[in-house]
Amino acid sequence: MATKRSEDYSKWYNEVIEKADLAEHSDVRGCMVIKPYGYAIWENMRAVLDAMFKETGHSNAYFPLFIPKSYLNKEAQHVEGFAKEAAVVTHYRLKLDENNQLIVDPEAKLEEELIVRPTSETIIWNSYKKWIQSYRDLPILINQWANVVRWEMRTRLFLRTSEFLWQEGHTAHATKDEAIAETKQMLDVYADFAENYMAMPVVKGWKTESERFGGADDTLCIEALMQDGKALQAGTSHFLGQNFAKAFDVKYADKNGKLEYVWATSWGVSTRLIGGLIMTHSDDEGLVLPPKLAPIQVVIVPIHKTEEQLEQIDAKVNELKNKLVAKGITVKYDNDVNRRPGWKFAEYEAKGVPVRIAMGPRDLENNKAEVARRDTKEKEIVNWDNIEAHIEKLLIDIQENLFNRAIAFRSENTTEVDTYDEFKKELEEKGGFISAHWDGTAETEELIKEETKATIRCIPFDSKEEAGVCIVTGKPSTRRVLFAKAY
Amino acid sequence: MATKRSEDYSKWYNEVIEKADLAEHSDVRGCMVIKPYGYAIWENMRAVLDAMFKETGHSNAYFPLFIPKSYLNKEAQHVEGFAKEAAVVTHYRLKLDENNQLIVDPEAKLEEELIVRPTSETIIWNSYKKWIQSYRDLPILINQWANVVRWEMRTRLFLRTSEFLWQEGHTAHATKDEAIAETKQMLDVYADFAENYMAMPVVKGWKTESERFGGADDTLCIEALMQDGKALQAGTSHFLGQNFAKAFDVKYADKNGKLEYVWATSWGVSTRLIGGLIMTHSDDEGLVLPPKLAPIQVVIVPIHKTEEQLEQIDAKVNELKNKLVAKGITVKYDNDVNRRPGWKFAEYEAKGVPVRIAMGPRDLENNKAEVARRDTKEKEIVNWDNIEAHIEKLLIDIQENLFNRAIAFRSENTTEVDTYDEFKKELEEKGGFISAHWDGTAETEELIKEETKATIRCIPFDSKEEAGVCIVTGKPSTRRVLFAKAY
Repeated sequence: MATKRSEDYSKWYNEVIEKADLAEHSDVRGCMVIKPYGYAIWENMRAVLDAMFKETGHSNAYFPLFIPKSYLNKEAQHVEGFAKEAAVVTHYRLKLDENNQLIVDPEAKLEEELIVRPTSETIIWNSYKKWIQSYRDLPILINQWANVVRWEMRTRLFLRTSEFLWQEGHTAHATKDEAIAETKQMLDVYADFAENYMAMPVVKGWKTESERFGGADDTLCIEALMQDGKALQAGTSHFLGQNFAKAFDVKYADKNGKLEYVWATSWGVSTRLIGGLIMTHSDDEGLVLPPKLAPIQVVIVPIHKTEEQLEQIDAKVNELKNKLVAKGITVKYDNDVNRRPGWKFAEYEAKGVPVRIAMGPRDLENNKAEVARRDTKEKEIVNWDNIEAHIEKLLIDIQENLFNRAIAFRSENTTEVDTYDEFKKELEEKGGFISAHWDGTAETEELIKEETKATIRCIPFDSKEEAGVCIVTGKPSTRRVLFAKAY
Repeated sequence: MATKRSEDYSKWYNEVIEKADLAEHSDVRGCMVIKPYGYAIWENMRAVLDAMFKETGHSNAYFPLFIPKSYLNKEAQHVEGFAKEAAVVTHYRLKLDENNQLIVDPEAKLEEELIVRPTSETIIWNSYKKWIQSYRDLPILINQWANVVRWEMRTRLFLRTSEFLWQEGHTAHATKDEAIAETKQMLDVYADFAENYMAMPVVKGWKTESERFGGADDTLCIEALMQDGKALQAGTSHFLGQNFAKAFDVKYADKNGKLEYVWATSWGVSTRLIGGLIMTHSDDEGLVLPPKLAPIQVVIVPIHKTEEQLEQIDAKVNELKNKLVAKGITVKYDNDVNRRPGWKFAEYEAKGVPVRIAMGPRDLENNKAEVARRDTKEKEIVNWDNIEAHIEKLLIDIQENLFNRAIAFRSENTTEVDTYDEFKKELEEKGGFISAHWDGTAETEELIKEETKATIRCIPFDSKEEAGVCIVTGKPSTRRVLFAKAY
């Protein structure tokens, strides 16, 4: 890599993506192209999440890409949240003009403009209105995998793009308690996924009122810490109260026939997670991937001088490969003779392949192979007879090590402060999560944001009750909240 | 079902979809909502196709939803094909006006309008230009799962909607032969999928020039015959020649360093296949699904009077369920006590569940169960000890029977004619595929279309060489082509 993390984190990030061939900016403003290797990571994420959603009783469905402008306007907070970044379809036809130029046909103007969905609460609740009559129709537990568009002027691959891929869960419930339980359950699913698959530790907590989703009564989130000390909001789960039910007039008859508004949740994670994955684990040699999400878990590279040697290695490796594949391990054997081993080593390192096995003529003789792990870059010589079990264990070790390393990093970079001076000093010099008392007002939150660029990432579920005073106003506070500069 | 196929096929089709709860029209013109059960069928289709694409060496990727207007204009035939149905994004912001009405912000007008992709050749070839320098970069074998928009005034669920879901393969090759081989290979994949998973027989063939994809040198297709005697184009695979390479100036250096334009293919199938699935197999009781794509392959319904009986049935059924699930069979045990067995029978019949098992107290005593197959509606009493093997075999039988039934229907409804009078008579009275000689001109094709509404569905690969004369002009013809009215 040309740029080290310590030199220019942002440039390093772009280089990791480029070298690993994950994605690139398209010529369409703000939209990215997710290249096959990057998309393969998304497919792995999607498969795991989809299974988790189904395990918790959800089904997938699909709703229209377009939202009539008036729908967006039905929930006041919601429209405020999304109007400023709406891509608007106004016409439905092109034509050639008299100069043979392709123009928008002025006669094909839509009566009502359509918004390309920035999120689907409105279009979905417009359907739920038709689907819900009685308590027997509830709960509705639906998820959608889709593309959404939120117009962005300043974009960054995976982290902030005008179009991105995501999933959005939209559920409808008879009771407030049930909806709140759903909101929490889905946050737990996200935290489970982040920690046990992405090996990315997260803090679960509540968003402050000013950071809430437009139309939510409560927004729960998972927040992760990147290697440059900035936080990343990795997933959100919203308790929507009865706001959308009221906006779209969705009521159900309870067991006594009484009409009640329906309770709602929505929750989502996006391709942004790939950005989080990159920034949590990668190093100056490139991408580092946790084995559970790596498109290639093990790469095997032969080192040979003669064709005969290669044939011998091929035979031996293919045997191993079959055994590993049978265990559900994804293996690539790269015996392309047109590229040198050193070149391949660098490529798979840049692509974050967790385990690399190299086998040369001497290894063949000695019945051994060199096994290198991507996370620590340690190499060891392993007896071929034990290699299968060794690899299996190594993949588990790497997954754990990445998580532990990230946990340690977060611990080192989470600081408790009790004064605003300390706050500013730590934020400037060290960054990371800063745990401090806050008086609970939007004014103080805004002032801190303006003066330091730090925002309240969340009020952690596990922050303990303690008497304290707000670092800015000195007003009493009963628990610490987590501040950071954020992506 | 309120409407029989024989009474009003179109109304019957809508009822099947409604009763099976597959999809519905949204309030957004031309866009449908795919409901969970309908989407589950799409997920099954997608999983099988995706595995087939990967098996043949393709990777998934993702390209932008939006296409700059000028890109569409780079390939003359292509723009002609899609300009008339383009959804156009002209603005990127909404705002509240002085009357607090939500309006399109006139200051947020795009310099260049963006088209919501109707298909992605242009945006993808704009990327391929950057990816391809030498023969070493070829072939590129990419597929994309995505939503696309083609503005439609007259829509029909699954068959013709303004937005639909599909996959689009886009490949780039060094040689013409390789691209042609890819085009054929992917048509074979589609035919394999249609026949061996959807149980829907298809005719493989070439489209005539006037029916080709805009920008293709050749379009191959699979055509299926629906129960009302109309044809359905179920999938297409295009040999694009060097048209898009020329439009986007994509050249590669061959082994001698000589620059050549790249050869291309594209191929796609969509949620339209669900429409084909419905219209191939379903009957007057509702949906009929081939086991290989059914979201629920086996439903088990208990019939009981006492709670004790239900408990006994529960225990027995759960044991069977676990055994079937272990074999990869999808089973639903519906022991909801709030709905009567008869109601459940009708529901699962309407949903096309291939096999239904009913177990009552007497069955319990006799160690038997009633097994009903959806395709023929035959029932039999099966000994519980053999039931697992019986079900496994039955699912295979149903899959085969559906295909054979559809093949027989197609044979009965494919007619060879040698005069235009016969052609019109058969088309009017019987419908179906009509095999006839045609002089190969677009004029004759157009005349037949205007006079009869029948189009040339394809020139079948397997239509044999034979001397004949065009049914309209009497000019010589060397092979028959397949006509039909089509969806």
